[in-house]
Amino acid sequence: MNLSPLGTGPEFDKIRRIWQALCDRAAFGGDDCAIVQVGKETLAISTDMAVEGTHFQPGWLTQYELGWRAGAAALSDLAAVAATPRGVLVSLGLSREWPDEFVTELMEGVADVAQSVGAVVWGGDVVRSDRLVIDVTVVGSVERAVLRSGAAVGDILWVTGSFGGPLTAIRAWESRREPERAARERFAHPEPRVAQALWLRDRGATAMIDLSDGLLPDTGQLAAASGVQCVINQESIPKHPFTEDHATALLSGEEFELLVALPHETAADVAAKFEQEFAREFTRIGHTESGSGVSLQLNGAPLELSLSMGYRHF
Amino acid sequence: MNLSPLGTGPEFDKIRRIWQALCDRAAFGGDDCAIVQVGKETLAISTDMAVEGTHFQPGWLTQYELGWRAGAAALSDLAAVAATPRGVLVSLGLSREWPDEFVTELMEGVADVAQSVGAVVWGGDVVRSDRLVIDVTVVGSVERAVLRSGAAVGDILWVTGSFGGPLTAIRAWESRREPERAARERFAHPEPRVAQALWLRDRGATAMIDLSDGLLPDTGQLAAASGVQCVINQESIPKHPFTEDHATALLSGEEFELLVALPHETAADVAAKFEQEFAREFTRIGHTESGSGVSLQLNGAPLELSLSMGYRHF
Repeated sequence: MNLSPLGTGPEFDKIRRIWQALCDRAAFGGDDCAIVQVGKETLAISTDMAVEGTHFQPGWLTQYELGWRAGAAALSDLAAVAATPRGVLVSLGLSREWPDEFVTELMEGVADVAQSVGAVVWGGDVVRSDRLVIDVTVVGSVERAVLRSGAAVGDILWVTGSFGGPLTAIRAWESRREPERAARERFAHPEPRVAQALWLRDRGATAMIDLSDGLLPDTGQLAAASGVQCVINQESIPKHPFTEDHATALLSGEEFELLVALPHETAADVAAKFEQEFAREFTRIGHTESGSGVSLQLNGAPLELSLSMGYRHF
Repeated sequence: MNLSPLGTGPEFDKIRRIWQALCDRAAFGGDDCAIVQVGKETLAISTDMAVEGTHFQPGWLTQYELGWRAGAAALSDLAAVAATPRGVLVSLGLSREWPDEFVTELMEGVADVAQSVGAVVWGGDVVRSDRLVIDVTVVGSVERAVLRSGAAVGDILWVTGSFGGPLTAIRAWESRREPERAARERFAHPEPRVAQALWLRDRGATAMIDLSDGLLPDTGQLAAASGVQCVINQESIPKHPFTEDHATALLSGEEFELLVALPHETAADVAAKFEQEFAREFTRIGHTESGSGVSLQLNGAPLELSLSMGYRHF
């Protein structure tokens, strides 16, 4: 059990304390998924809980979108370690008032996002609850995992996609406005980057993480796990349309995109092929140096930054 | 996907409707666990959610017991199919007010029950929630599963343990009394019957199920899955101490014991050896006949029975 690679913040302090107490009754790698050996198979397995009132408010999303989003969040953890998704289990806490159509629509959302990355729904549990609770467990098989801890000094850092959409949508809902469609889509309909992750694994990615807690905090996790400093150029960060400023792009959680470290010798070549292969954004946002933490720079000059800016679970 | 083996009741109607809608996006066996092939390994996997206010009330259990009980309930599903437990994931919805010691104690309970059956904690998720939510996912490896569907006409039905303790404890709490210690233990500290299940598998058990929804409803599930009638002799049902009547023993959910079908030729011999091996109760409670459903009898005469008597999830 190696707890040092976990980054900072109250959620990680809490998790660290739990794992310390469990000692040899737990096996903990510190990645997006647990990576475990069961007989002859290496599995990646992860669980992701969403609670109404914490992760979303009533009325923001349709039932189908609730299911899609919860499934995508969990499947994104498999993408983060380059696992191939196999199956999904869904525990639902539902109020008595929820009609059966709602439950079916929600499960259709989960099943569709699972199918989009080659997985099926294996089972689940349905119980009564005052507030909607959706807990999705995902299982994937692992040929060769890409961990947070593999980045070396001198690697180049790239991200898939663009940032700020989910936070832009949440801010609109919180101001009682309907978000712009494109921003809303980013919150309601994220796509786990499974195909991209497997492709990047096969082309030498040294480290990977998904950006579900936000670009800056999760970059901090990768830096801590790899024992390097991540230097991020703020002007390079791709902003999602309708995202007003770079702070929003850096602050926005629920971004189910990948941060990837590639060796500097091959990075440019891999990136060019990535854009050909997937017709998607793939952006160089920085590099690694010796040191620790994240150094945010603007046109080469350091900016002050707080790593607590991402989504705070507690 | 075969939905017919599911028994009756509103929970199962709900589940049936969900699975019908998902079609080929789901793989559903209808057992306590999903039994799935991942590469070269056959896995049993199950998830079990407990919500404060639904499954327990504040003040009934210590944090350690909450964790133990939630873990045991999930691990009992692995026992039910004769899987060997490997790992556990725990999603926790916690209020901000819960001190870290509570979380650690709860996780110690989960870790201890996992360790008691040879499994370790692989990971989990911690999120904010008004009410305590504990969702435990368990993964086991399967050499040869014992399903609900394997009972043949003429098999003899046996149960491990004795019944009524959990309901007796709940009734005491609901009357604002502290339950008798032995009854409270049955609710707070159930033991997944993993060793017994593997032993019974190796001695010819044809069908098995755990009795988490109550002896009668789960016997109905086994009857439906196997396409037989289960004849149960009420006078044979072992009552837990302080359990006043047979109805309580039949009605009580949260019984993490096994119902096992054994071929009539070998049943008596296996049962005698079981008691030697485990120094635990193993009781013949009936047999299977051609037909369907459950026939409850008292000294050979049929009793009226309602299959909706067990725990109703909705």
